[in-house]
Amino acid sequence: MEVGTAGSPVITEDSHRLAAEALERWTSLLSAAHVVTDDPSRKAAETATFATTQKVCAILRPGSRDEVQECMRIANRFRIPVYPVSSGKNWGYGSRVPVADASVLIDLSRLNRILDFNEKLAYVTVEPGVTQRQLFQLLQDRRSALWMDATGSSPDCSLIGNAVERGFGHTPYGDHFAQGCGLEVVLPTGAVLETGFGRFPGSQAGPAYKSGAGPTLDGLFSQSNLGIVTRMTIWLMPAPEHFEAFFFQCNREDQLAPLVESLRPLRLQGILRSTVHVANDYKVLGGIQQYPWQETDGATPLRPELMRQLRSRLKFGAWSGSGGLYGTRGQVAEAKRAVRRALKDKVDRLQFLDDRRLAFASRFAKLYQFLTGWDLSRTLDLARPVFGLMKGVPTEKPLESAYWRKKSLPSAPMDPDRDGCGLLWHAPIAPMEGRHLDVVVEIANRILLEYGFEPSISMTLITERAVACVISICYDRAEPGQDDQAMACYRHLRQELTDRGYYSYRLGIQAMSEMSGPDGHAGLIRAIKNAIDPNGVLAPGRYEPAENRESSKATASHE
Amino acid sequence: MEVGTAGSPVITEDSHRLAAEALERWTSLLSAAHVVTDDPSRKAAETATFATTQKVCAILRPGSRDEVQECMRIANRFRIPVYPVSSGKNWGYGSRVPVADASVLIDLSRLNRILDFNEKLAYVTVEPGVTQRQLFQLLQDRRSALWMDATGSSPDCSLIGNAVERGFGHTPYGDHFAQGCGLEVVLPTGAVLETGFGRFPGSQAGPAYKSGAGPTLDGLFSQSNLGIVTRMTIWLMPAPEHFEAFFFQCNREDQLAPLVESLRPLRLQGILRSTVHVANDYKVLGGIQQYPWQETDGATPLRPELMRQLRSRLKFGAWSGSGGLYGTRGQVAEAKRAVRRALKDKVDRLQFLDDRRLAFASRFAKLYQFLTGWDLSRTLDLARPVFGLMKGVPTEKPLESAYWRKKSLPSAPMDPDRDGCGLLWHAPIAPMEGRHLDVVVEIANRILLEYGFEPSISMTLITERAVACVISICYDRAEPGQDDQAMACYRHLRQELTDRGYYSYRLGIQAMSEMSGPDGHAGLIRAIKNAIDPNGVLAPGRYEPAENRESSKATASHE
Repeated sequence: MEVGTAGSPVITEDSHRLAAEALERWTSLLSAAHVVTDDPSRKAAETATFATTQKVCAILRPGSRDEVQECMRIANRFRIPVYPVSSGKNWGYGSRVPVADASVLIDLSRLNRILDFNEKLAYVTVEPGVTQRQLFQLLQDRRSALWMDATGSSPDCSLIGNAVERGFGHTPYGDHFAQGCGLEVVLPTGAVLETGFGRFPGSQAGPAYKSGAGPTLDGLFSQSNLGIVTRMTIWLMPAPEHFEAFFFQCNREDQLAPLVESLRPLRLQGILRSTVHVANDYKVLGGIQQYPWQETDGATPLRPELMRQLRSRLKFGAWSGSGGLYGTRGQVAEAKRAVRRALKDKVDRLQFLDDRRLAFASRFAKLYQFLTGWDLSRTLDLARPVFGLMKGVPTEKPLESAYWRKKSLPSAPMDPDRDGCGLLWHAPIAPMEGRHLDVVVEIANRILLEYGFEPSISMTLITERAVACVISICYDRAEPGQDDQAMACYRHLRQELTDRGYYSYRLGIQAMSEMSGPDGHAGLIRAIKNAIDPNGVLAPGRYEPAENRESSKATASHE
Repeated sequence: MEVGTAGSPVITEDSHRLAAEALERWTSLLSAAHVVTDDPSRKAAETATFATTQKVCAILRPGSRDEVQECMRIANRFRIPVYPVSSGKNWGYGSRVPVADASVLIDLSRLNRILDFNEKLAYVTVEPGVTQRQLFQLLQDRRSALWMDATGSSPDCSLIGNAVERGFGHTPYGDHFAQGCGLEVVLPTGAVLETGFGRFPGSQAGPAYKSGAGPTLDGLFSQSNLGIVTRMTIWLMPAPEHFEAFFFQCNREDQLAPLVESLRPLRLQGILRSTVHVANDYKVLGGIQQYPWQETDGATPLRPELMRQLRSRLKFGAWSGSGGLYGTRGQVAEAKRAVRRALKDKVDRLQFLDDRRLAFASRFAKLYQFLTGWDLSRTLDLARPVFGLMKGVPTEKPLESAYWRKKSLPSAPMDPDRDGCGLLWHAPIAPMEGRHLDVVVEIANRILLEYGFEPSISMTLITERAVACVISICYDRAEPGQDDQAMACYRHLRQELTDRGYYSYRLGIQAMSEMSGPDGHAGLIRAIKNAIDPNGVLAPGRYEPAENRESSKATASHE
């Protein structure tokens, strides 16, 4: 970063609108090393995986909760909108880019301490900068008998960041916000609160139980702009006596609905205790390779006819799925029987995989293929990270698919923002019935192809009753016009899905203002926001309907 | 009720402080039949299972959500505090008695429609007047393959009332507030909101998924005075292929800690998917009979020495426990093995019971005892309702224990308020470690006996990591001085437990103002309350720290 003669950051062209005095206060609080204002850093922070116009005036990097509180007090004094990010890897939903223009980022990655670890009661208490990789390493170092739950995003993602966005993973602890408690939150004014029993003096049960007496506030701080979560307890699962994964494949598109009808009872009965992921062919291909530029002579999108040829050549189905079985050996054996029964006649291939078989298969892939007919070489490449995720092992692998439309291979460390990967995610929730999924698939297929994109879809049986239909619009931002095209596609997709009643469980920054508004729910959130953020400085616009924003008091002009 | 010449309710002595005009408005809204002001009805509503002084001015019985909204608007116009109850059976925590004096009750029992029932996705949507009995009957009538979860309170308890108080039951769906979604809430001003996806037009996933996009508000309406829940979706569990209960017994007091240490891994590993209840000897005896007045020559409390004799004579242990195993036959068999292994050397008796064995045992109790040595006659009386509860069958049986210190038998229908049963509950949460439970038990035993009451305790392994230690102070309100003595005991017990860090998951009306206050949590709730209930009319004082109440604007004087 550039430092002026007086040791304070240079006020550059883009940041000149920032009240110089606020910047001085922040700098004297954090030291110049932790107030970033140089052009390249700010530009990087203004870059998502789709077109954005918001400017970032500066990046503050507090090192403690006290500093976060003081940062907020300064923001209030000068009425400057600030936007907190944990690791900032919210790819496909806006990365680090603030919803409001001319915001100051508060980057929480220096708050990266693991504050508590309890093997017996199976939890860890962390700060927002703690990543999946860090927690996994801790568990390895301690030779812990506990598993974490990991998302398919980067190992360098923040645990808290994902949890407060209500992200999900792959084990029975896959609902990240539900599987935790005891939030410490810095409110917009700089005050701090704790949720659950932890707020009571000397309390014993804080990390072990979700609610204290009185209203439960945790939900207010997920997908919101009501506070900055600076600490959270995350529950961990004991490694089961035995783990086994199952992988299945359907050759025809129309097998999805009956498949889900057969899986629902297993989810409801608790035989399947974790999510089942079912991906369409486009999604699977994106996990195997980049766009087949040569075979298509550079034409896009990849038409269903060619996709069918690729499926047959590369030996994957119209739908491919996976799930995990956790328990004692006997329980897993029992669950296997139930899965086999449920999927009989519903899938064209069903394979179980455990550690022993995976190790064996890796060593004898060719022989194995000969013996079983199962194409292992490619399957193992695909299966290993998925298998790992079901055991809570973070992996970089799924991130590669963000480079689908790029013309060169991803270089390490992958950074979709930096590399111009185009990615827009939309994840409507549907009740777990085949008929709903058919509607969503029809809409996604039709609209994405119409706009020239591949309809990459995965269906996650996320709870006992609901499916998260994750649709990604993947493109190359370096191609002229594609940013606009993708956004138009996104808006069309979103509109048609909500017209049919399918709303996303999570929103990108481009869509937050379009949340339906004029009801009591929005009114209550507005009332809360006004009461606790009188200057409207904390992440204005984040998960806020447009009409709520009008009452937001912080603006971009601070002259 | 008394009706005046003009058809409006007579303003009686106790209700004269009520603005006559408000009463007129309510009466013209609901009709005189649903505005109750007669003395006996008001007196009954002012009666809990412990001493209270709050007066009830009138009881409003709205029949629809619209009427609830209009009731709130009138309350605001005249600044009269109102206090909503669903079925009003919050025994041991304050029954129907409002926290603030001179309140008007809003009795929601006429909102008793089951609005939706979905066998496939396993849920039911109900109004607050719907009781456990009603839902159970619906499931029977429909020959449903779904089970509800029931509390050990009366079959006539409200489902929503228990859920919003965060009550718990006995099956894997025992966390009543967690196992539901889609709240419809009338806010203090009369506005209405829906939580989750249900608030979006045409949404499909409302009853199937907890959160919509943006902050999750559900928790605000549990244990609070921020809104009146007028609708909720309650998830149901599919009847498992097989169910089996286990019952165990420890002869010595000091067996609790090692027992819990052995059960924790089973809870954490998901082998035990539901609560395990462990009751001490006093609790068990209270389930079998009333106080042994003859044997003690009328003296109280029942001393541990005599308790040990009774245990040996009636063949129960220092600790008796039960839990349920749910799943396929194979899973249950597997879980049985795990329970057997875990409890080996930890308990003095372990017995498994399924439907078949229960039917057999009931028919051949004597023979069974001869063959197995297990005292069945009494055990079956105790086991049957517990067995039923683990299958979601509501029962009146546990309520009998509220009559423990009475000198006559309970008469049907039981009504502890009417019958002068003294009952104060306190339910601190402890982390699931034996050492914590030993501390709680020591404190409860010492203090209750010191004040002349029997320390009746049950330990519920309520989640994977926490135990709800339910302590009841049970007495006869007809005995002079006992109300004061019980309350003094309660306060002492509560103080010593909180000094050691054990806080109750739920509070009685007498304790709500003592919630620890001067922190950000209380401040945020106060800010929300002020923002959405500007006149402070909705249940002032309910789960509100004393310092919050000072800002409450509704008072008892409306002249």
